[in-house]
Amino acid sequence: MNPTLSQRAQKLTSSVIREILKITERPEVISFAGGLPSPDTFPVERVLAATQTILTTAPTPALQYGPTEGYLQLREWIAARHSTGSVRIDPADVLVTTGSQQALDLLGKTLIDSGSRVLVETPTYLGALQAFSLSEPTYVSVPSDEHGPQLEMLTKEDLSGARFMYCLPNFQNPTGRRIPLARREQLAKVAVEAGLLVVEDDPYGALSYSGDALPTLKSMMPENVVYLGSFSKVLTPGLRVGYLIAPQALHRKLVQAKQAADLHTPSFTQRIVYECVKDGFLDTHIPTIRELYRQRCQVMLEAMQEHFPKGVSWNRPEGGMFIWVNLPTGMDSVELLQKAIAENVAFVPGAPFFANEPQRNTLRLSFVTVPPERIQRGIAALGALIERESVGLKV
Amino acid sequence: MNPTLSQRAQKLTSSVIREILKITERPEVISFAGGLPSPDTFPVERVLAATQTILTTAPTPALQYGPTEGYLQLREWIAARHSTGSVRIDPADVLVTTGSQQALDLLGKTLIDSGSRVLVETPTYLGALQAFSLSEPTYVSVPSDEHGPQLEMLTKEDLSGARFMYCLPNFQNPTGRRIPLARREQLAKVAVEAGLLVVEDDPYGALSYSGDALPTLKSMMPENVVYLGSFSKVLTPGLRVGYLIAPQALHRKLVQAKQAADLHTPSFTQRIVYECVKDGFLDTHIPTIRELYRQRCQVMLEAMQEHFPKGVSWNRPEGGMFIWVNLPTGMDSVELLQKAIAENVAFVPGAPFFANEPQRNTLRLSFVTVPPERIQRGIAALGALIERESVGLKV
Repeated sequence: MNPTLSQRAQKLTSSVIREILKITERPEVISFAGGLPSPDTFPVERVLAATQTILTTAPTPALQYGPTEGYLQLREWIAARHSTGSVRIDPADVLVTTGSQQALDLLGKTLIDSGSRVLVETPTYLGALQAFSLSEPTYVSVPSDEHGPQLEMLTKEDLSGARFMYCLPNFQNPTGRRIPLARREQLAKVAVEAGLLVVEDDPYGALSYSGDALPTLKSMMPENVVYLGSFSKVLTPGLRVGYLIAPQALHRKLVQAKQAADLHTPSFTQRIVYECVKDGFLDTHIPTIRELYRQRCQVMLEAMQEHFPKGVSWNRPEGGMFIWVNLPTGMDSVELLQKAIAENVAFVPGAPFFANEPQRNTLRLSFVTVPPERIQRGIAALGALIERESVGLKV
Repeated sequence: MNPTLSQRAQKLTSSVIREILKITERPEVISFAGGLPSPDTFPVERVLAATQTILTTAPTPALQYGPTEGYLQLREWIAARHSTGSVRIDPADVLVTTGSQQALDLLGKTLIDSGSRVLVETPTYLGALQAFSLSEPTYVSVPSDEHGPQLEMLTKEDLSGARFMYCLPNFQNPTGRRIPLARREQLAKVAVEAGLLVVEDDPYGALSYSGDALPTLKSMMPENVVYLGSFSKVLTPGLRVGYLIAPQALHRKLVQAKQAADLHTPSFTQRIVYECVKDGFLDTHIPTIRELYRQRCQVMLEAMQEHFPKGVSWNRPEGGMFIWVNLPTGMDSVELLQKAIAENVAFVPGAPFFANEPQRNTLRLSFVTVPPERIQRGIAALGALIERESVGLKV
């Protein structure tokens, strides 16, 4: 029999990234396509010690059902970590999620009706588009430059009635760009004036190569922002522990939606995270991740400088895991990918990261899981391919 | 600011069970309200050994992102476990979910449009209603007796065009009833004839007190059934590992919906489950759970026989975690609960388990986490309360 699918299911398509990842699992492929953190940074010994502590001292609550809101001690730790001089985060506003991705799902469910307007950056995180699209919104792509979204370029009509703006201010996936302070202040001003809710997705905020940090949008306009955080990029992703911080009225609805979604995030993984981080471990651990990623980013940038032909441009990220590339006008990165895979190099085409009109001559490179020698070899091969493909273009 | 909520979020309410559980956390309350398995059954040593094996032999894949479909070795184990002489389950049809609850969420997303007809038992599992209701279906309550749903009492009009029937054939939450073989055969016949998809939710199937098992609906009509399984009741719930088995066309859509929901179930917890079960552990472990629950069920049934007044009736479960009680006509179990809590006894009122017209004189009792002496004391207090309340009723 053929079950009748819901309209939203009929529109569902698989993530291009994930399909590509399957192709590129062959060891001979040098893949810049992944969004995976480097396993060299996983604190295996610490996770092992945490599991032993938990299972020998208080196994029952770690293995039993728990509250939907999350493990209280972890919520308190998260609240304290995000409290600054001027802004105090209440643990009651924290909801532990099964990875940050789940927060996107819960926000879609609680805030979007079919046809609701949702503002997104140009480009934006593909996984957010996938999650929101199940509720069938109308996306408004906010004009964006190398400093991020230009909210002030929208009309009052664009802003009014939008359910929220989704924004990734730090080392955005896919572009790697960070919104500078002045742009953040401007964004906060426009949002507060318009009564606009902002979803601030911040999985990479701690990964500034120089170790500096800009104020979060949450700290600038606490009542207007739902903040999303994650342990995937600073501890390990395989535990699937993320969180959101939301104003109480919305928090209550998100808790109810989460109850229906998976009852709660695993009691055990929440406690492992808490055991790993409670003593300030991240303060010594994160700098080692930053340094590794800074070095590999540097290697890739130097290789690009050497091997990429004229007509190709890219940014120089100040943190995070990604570099964004603009190919010569007229070149399609999906077509380029087919040829690149034949030469055992992979990347992610830029098109799926656009909510509306895609810029087909863009692509995303990740450097964090690839050793320096392979970065150089892969970039050299990719540069030569782009150069060959450029010849045929009418520029 | 007050964010604009989606229509479905405006209708969301918190689970009555979870709100009550919060009240009844006081140690002096004898709670028959929980749906928690007994922590006496948690194999702590085995989980500890599993974590050590995983983190000392192959830590990286356990801590890294993984495929949305789940850990392949676990999926193969699940497929083999559910393959019988006549029916072979393909690992490709298995999707690991973050608890069985997530399977309900994914099915709602992929199969229900606003107003779609969904058939449910009378009563049915509250958590399924919560998950499906986010997609705003129209529920059709299938007439049900002590042997389960009577699908043949529905008209062709009721059946045709229904997106699916949701059914919990073994030791149902909340009634504890099991659908006998003849009724299963009848149900399968009607479903196949009508081209009706059946969601078979089976978290308690292994908990038959005598150890017997009836054929699953999946084995009777593989193409018509999505089967949901869970490790929560036979291993531990705090790991949040469940699974579904679905025909390929639907499986693909469920994988895509899961990708948007949480990318994948934690790599680590999936491997813990696999390490715990791969050597046949459940075959010796499950009988110890059955025996514990059988004994406690027996204690509760004897106490009910002794202390519950005339006019109260209940079933005698052959397995699982619940007894279903019919109070005298006219008595409202929500009102009774207020008075019971004042006397330090708790249960779950039956009304929220009905998709449409509730039977307000019903309630659910769980016995699995309460020691025998407290079962007797709690049932005695509840019996006395019901007797006092009966006096005022015009019967």
